[in-house]
Amino acid sequence: MFYLGVDIGGTSIKGGMVTKDGKLFDTFKMPVIKNEEPEKNIKKLVTLIEKFIKDYNYKKEEIVGVGVGVPGIIDSTHGIVTYSGNLKWFDLPLKKILEDSLGLPVKITNDANAAALAEAKFGLGNKYKSFLMITLGTGIGSGIVIDGKMYAGNFGKGAEFGHSLLVMDGRQCSCGRKGCLEAYASATALVKDTKIMMELHKDSLMWKISEKYGAVSARVPFEAAKERDPYAIELVDYYVKCLSEGLINYFNTFRPEAVILSGGIAEEGEFLISKIRNYCQEHDYGIKLCPPVDIVKSLIGYDSGKIGAAALFID
Amino acid sequence: MFYLGVDIGGTSIKGGMVTKDGKLFDTFKMPVIKNEEPEKNIKKLVTLIEKFIKDYNYKKEEIVGVGVGVPGIIDSTHGIVTYSGNLKWFDLPLKKILEDSLGLPVKITNDANAAALAEAKFGLGNKYKSFLMITLGTGIGSGIVIDGKMYAGNFGKGAEFGHSLLVMDGRQCSCGRKGCLEAYASATALVKDTKIMMELHKDSLMWKISEKYGAVSARVPFEAAKERDPYAIELVDYYVKCLSEGLINYFNTFRPEAVILSGGIAEEGEFLISKIRNYCQEHDYGIKLCPPVDIVKSLIGYDSGKIGAAALFID
Repeated sequence: MFYLGVDIGGTSIKGGMVTKDGKLFDTFKMPVIKNEEPEKNIKKLVTLIEKFIKDYNYKKEEIVGVGVGVPGIIDSTHGIVTYSGNLKWFDLPLKKILEDSLGLPVKITNDANAAALAEAKFGLGNKYKSFLMITLGTGIGSGIVIDGKMYAGNFGKGAEFGHSLLVMDGRQCSCGRKGCLEAYASATALVKDTKIMMELHKDSLMWKISEKYGAVSARVPFEAAKERDPYAIELVDYYVKCLSEGLINYFNTFRPEAVILSGGIAEEGEFLISKIRNYCQEHDYGIKLCPPVDIVKSLIGYDSGKIGAAALFID
Repeated sequence: MFYLGVDIGGTSIKGGMVTKDGKLFDTFKMPVIKNEEPEKNIKKLVTLIEKFIKDYNYKKEEIVGVGVGVPGIIDSTHGIVTYSGNLKWFDLPLKKILEDSLGLPVKITNDANAAALAEAKFGLGNKYKSFLMITLGTGIGSGIVIDGKMYAGNFGKGAEFGHSLLVMDGRQCSCGRKGCLEAYASATALVKDTKIMMELHKDSLMWKISEKYGAVSARVPFEAAKERDPYAIELVDYYVKCLSEGLINYFNTFRPEAVILSGGIAEEGEFLISKIRNYCQEHDYGIKLCPPVDIVKSLIGYDSGKIGAAALFID
């Protein structure tokens, strides 16, 4: 039997067929057309899935179900996309629409929860029973796994770590609150801080590195910090401090076995993660008295959205 | 069959016999002698329990077990009090000591977790499957109940909400971090703020109310605010803001069905809780899109420590 996983993003929709043991093989991808009626994008997706099933010679009887990960606030109990800011979807009964069109069972979840589920079932979940997955991208996503099971909150609307405070009355966050972790430790926040730092220091190496990439991205301060650019080091240190303070909040709240980092910024790997470990070790409340929390990079990485969505149907 | 529940506090040890359905009847109480060897206090406790069992004509065969709640960092898996700041206990194998002395099975847990367990089994847990219990006292304790079960973190050392940040680099907290919620929203913090406000405003009604009680307690600003003392109103508003911002963090993290408040400050009742509800409704991330979180006062209240400790043995 097979499980179809679909990962809906702000710019593209990716999918693929997954086996019971979490192996992804045949895949597909389509762009999301912005500012279009949701129905049009979904109609295209349905056509693409039907073509994919046909092209790869699957039989519908072989497909247990279609799992879909969507960024935003998802009512997974009722299969409704309550609100997705990136997609401009609002109160969309996605499960029903897809089931009616495809004639297959459908389940939907938040994209970060899907990534955490993939890690729980087929990644570091083999090592850790209880962990937090933090996705460091445009925003900060998160998933909670307790004793091997996802905890998604009432109607699947919890686990929004990015929107807990770092600084009361601090930076304006896209969610409406002021001072959320996301406003300090997302890639978006780091890029903003980098641009300000560059404007203040025209002699920074970051100018040269940005030119190489054609834009100021979150990679710029990390690459410049490795080259010992003092302004980039300051940026990275502040980023590490903000992210680590956020992580310590979750340590004290959950005391999980591990925090697993994924998303673009996690790709900075040990250069970043070793700094986070050091900071947390120095500042964790009661660290000497509590079991330490492992801080590690996701094992599954890029495909976790698709695999985790499919895993909604895998026991 | 009966279940013995013991609630160890910083100033007294309270205990009582509990039935399978959570009814507390015969009780005992003894003072904790400060700065004494932990063994001396425990020896006294053992003698008292033996006397209690004898005086009330219980048979040891009727007692399923002795549950004990202790403030601090508890390794409930191994039955060790890792650290209790109030009691000055450190790495104390409490479970083993009591089992050897009493000849009865013993389980230990954090006192806030015990209170949450009592509420889950015999209080508002009938209404809410997933909730957070927040204890507003000298410090801020907390317990997490998910689908009717306690979540206490790795080795039972999680659920320390009081030590997640409200303000990075903010007020010094007793735990070593700077800016924890406990440093803003505990009774201790409120009393500190009240004293400062009183020094600044000799005309405040809070002077008269403090005289009545013989000390500045957390009740003083609440009572003065009800009498429309402007300085007290400012204090209460700031307290409500700090506590509510902390609660919203947990809403976004857990999206539980309810947050249940207990401890001394929760005794302020609807005067306080209605203000918290209003603040949270105005500032909750995505409140219009997410299921609302009920904010209510504990049903069990004062006895929850004893009943919850006993409940460690009740299926």
